Amino acid sequence: MSTITGFETVDVRFETSAMLDGSDAMNPDPDYSAAYLRVTTDAADGHEGHAFVFTIGRGNDVQVAAIDAVAHRVLGRDVEAILDDLGGFWREFVYDSQLRWLGPEKGVMHMAIGAVVNAFWDLKAKRAGLPLWQLLARMSPEEIVALVDFRYLSDALTEDDALGILRAALPGRAEREAALLALGYPAYTTTPGWLGYSDDKLRRLAREAVDEGFQQIKLKVGDRLDDDVRRLRIARETVGPDIRIAIDANQRWDRDQAIDWIRALEPFDLAWVEEPTSPDDILAHAAIARAVAPVRIATGEHGMSRVLFKQLLQAEAASIVQIDSTRVAGVNENIAILLLAAKFGIPVCPHAGGVGLCEAVQHFSMFDFVAVSGSQDGRMIEYTKHLHEHFVAPVELVGGRYCAPLAPGIGMEMLASSLAENEFGVRATA
Amino acid sequence: MSTITGFETVDVRFETSAMLDGSDAMNPDPDYSAAYLRVTTDAADGHEGHAFVFTIGRGNDVQVAAIDAVAHRVLGRDVEAILDDLGGFWREFVYDSQLRWLGPEKGVMHMAIGAVVNAFWDLKAKRAGLPLWQLLARMSPEEIVALVDFRYLSDALTEDDALGILRAALPGRAEREAALLALGYPAYTTTPGWLGYSDDKLRRLAREAVDEGFQQIKLKVGDRLDDDVRRLRIARETVGPDIRIAIDANQRWDRDQAIDWIRALEPFDLAWVEEPTSPDDILAHAAIARAVAPVRIATGEHGMSRVLFKQLLQAEAASIVQIDSTRVAGVNENIAILLLAAKFGIPVCPHAGGVGLCEAVQHFSMFDFVAVSGSQDGRMIEYTKHLHEHFVAPVELVGGRYCAPLAPGIGMEMLASSLAENEFGVRATA
Repeated sequence: MSTITGFETVDVRFETSAMLDGSDAMNPDPDYSAAYLRVTTDAADGHEGHAFVFTIGRGNDVQVAAIDAVAHRVLGRDVEAILDDLGGFWREFVYDSQLRWLGPEKGVMHMAIGAVVNAFWDLKAKRAGLPLWQLLARMSPEEIVALVDFRYLSDALTEDDALGILRAALPGRAEREAALLALGYPAYTTTPGWLGYSDDKLRRLAREAVDEGFQQIKLKVGDRLDDDVRRLRIARETVGPDIRIAIDANQRWDRDQAIDWIRALEPFDLAWVEEPTSPDDILAHAAIARAVAPVRIATGEHGMSRVLFKQLLQAEAASIVQIDSTRVAGVNENIAILLLAAKFGIPVCPHAGGVGLCEAVQHFSMFDFVAVSGSQDGRMIEYTKHLHEHFVAPVELVGGRYCAPLAPGIGMEMLASSLAENEFGVRATA
Repeated sequence: MSTITGFETVDVRFETSAMLDGSDAMNPDPDYSAAYLRVTTDAADGHEGHAFVFTIGRGNDVQVAAIDAVAHRVLGRDVEAILDDLGGFWREFVYDSQLRWLGPEKGVMHMAIGAVVNAFWDLKAKRAGLPLWQLLARMSPEEIVALVDFRYLSDALTEDDALGILRAALPGRAEREAALLALGYPAYTTTPGWLGYSDDKLRRLAREAVDEGFQQIKLKVGDRLDDDVRRLRIARETVGPDIRIAIDANQRWDRDQAIDWIRALEPFDLAWVEEPTSPDDILAHAAIARAVAPVRIATGEHGMSRVLFKQLLQAEAASIVQIDSTRVAGVNENIAILLLAAKFGIPVCPHAGGVGLCEAVQHFSMFDFVAVSGSQDGRMIEYTKHLHEHFVAPVELVGGRYCAPLAPGIGMEMLASSLAENEFGVRATA
């Protein structure tokens, strides 16, 4: 038996805005940041739980304050009781009636709960000596379903539905795990496509992406149509007809503007169009999807909760679902969204990049492949090159594919030196 | 010319949970709280801008931290430049690309931006010597439209639509203002209906409500159907057939459960059913509304943004829109929602109660009556009895109607003594 003896939160920020890495039509100058949490116990194993919320700079201090407030409530608590019922632990915080007012289930407080939940997932995985994807993929369907809260989902996904999906995937688990360990999981890269890059840099990076084996690249669009046309032409000429090109408008358009703009870019053979408008606008996404079909709409990196994803699927508003591992409330809610997507037969292509999102989100796609959808068809994990060097177990890519991570944990642990060197504010301890 | 010289944030909490005031099916023990902001300038008039975000207890410190982070960014700035372009000021913060990641446009950060925006509205109204409703109702249609951000609204409400609505209401403004000053604005009361109250207390308070002149009361429901039936029977027997009874489930149900439950309670002649399920679930609200018609669905107290309200209206998911004055980003976004509701011909009946929400939200209904919808038909402002004594200008009700407030400002200023006596944490100053 062990106890939570302390935690530390750190406001970590990287000055990525100086390089225009990550620049898009709505986010011209992001400073990739992490509201970081480290939880310690008195167990002899010495394992710590590490997790973070990804942000893009200003406000990271507020996100840290929220994590701090939630983490204070686990001090002194029994570790095993939490780890044995992470579904109950999730409900305890998400349904805390007073905290709930601050969302409910969205924004800073929801992400803070996610970070605390994830720190315990990290502990659980480290204790099991397994990477998260493998820990999850070895659970029984019943154990997985117990992690998920089905409130507000029952009109689209019941507990029985979820059990059916997970049981159907049982037979092939071992075979798919072996395939994953041998061959990895497909990636696509956003590295060439930032809006702030010159045409020459776009051309050079697009060529490099093809040389590295990526089968899909993604370009940021939505600022000026003539720029988008020119950049898409350069990209298509560079990568040839067989490499897929997705575009990402980062919420820039209103509904009708999106439809017109996408039609103008359609000749470039688009793999998908991402975040055409407000991420909360289910009805507009559905209208856009109907109007521009067969061009496919993708969204989800700002998807605040399972309730939003449920509606996007019900309304046929998205053909590709993009979870963000730190946007929703932790591992549990990511699993809920994977199950919803599987129910609707829609591929999940997680949002990554930023700082540490590649390291984190790969676990969900791999778990999905082994134990949920059972498929890699039409599925990829986003990849960008920056900031991997700050992680204890950085992602490895070979030939445009993620190698299955083997390090125990959820992949979010940063190097102590990186935390120290990139700390922005005052560190809070308790 | 004057400058922002300082601000103060206060974590104010009231132990309302001890009385079961405010208890409902999802919020059994709220401690009504305010994340409070006071902004000072070096102007000779000595006016201060006061505003707050209403919360229900835990997490109020996080809300204060968020307000603090936003308020820091206005220190030293020119007051008149801000007050002369509050539409631009709103956009500056809501579209701050880095802060935006923490929402976008939802939750703790969005509410914090609302508090800062509202503090400046308070300053503007005090400088004009007018209550907010009158300040707004004397602006030109063009000035009002300049306050509203139409991004993501254009598929439902354009700037021209808004101008048309406001211009159509111009002719009767003076007459309606006079009527408002003479007769006030209708209220309904939630005071009798908290879930934690005994049957005797419900009966006594329902009788008092009728005696006080209220034409509508509201009961909390959704915990146990047999309790709801018993309490509705008591309420209906007590108030008679002519007083309307609304019910409020506070997000307790899933879609199909809501439909069954509402059908079971329909015989009690329901004025409306509020928050049947997740406040974010537009599609479920629409399905419930269709299934239980002609029973009317109301929602909005947790409505995070104008984008959500737009969709609720487009999907015919709500017959009554309930804005919460501190949930969305300040006066500007409340105006956007009033305009949306007017476009769709749907009455706005604001959420109030809590601490200070009655004082705040009355201004929007009165502005709506004078200058937007031009109507009080089917429109009421919620009222509960508690905590008015802490405000510099508490609401006044006569015969179940709100008297039009005359004190300059937005109504959110609390007594210094109340702030001091109910301060929860450490006060931050800058």
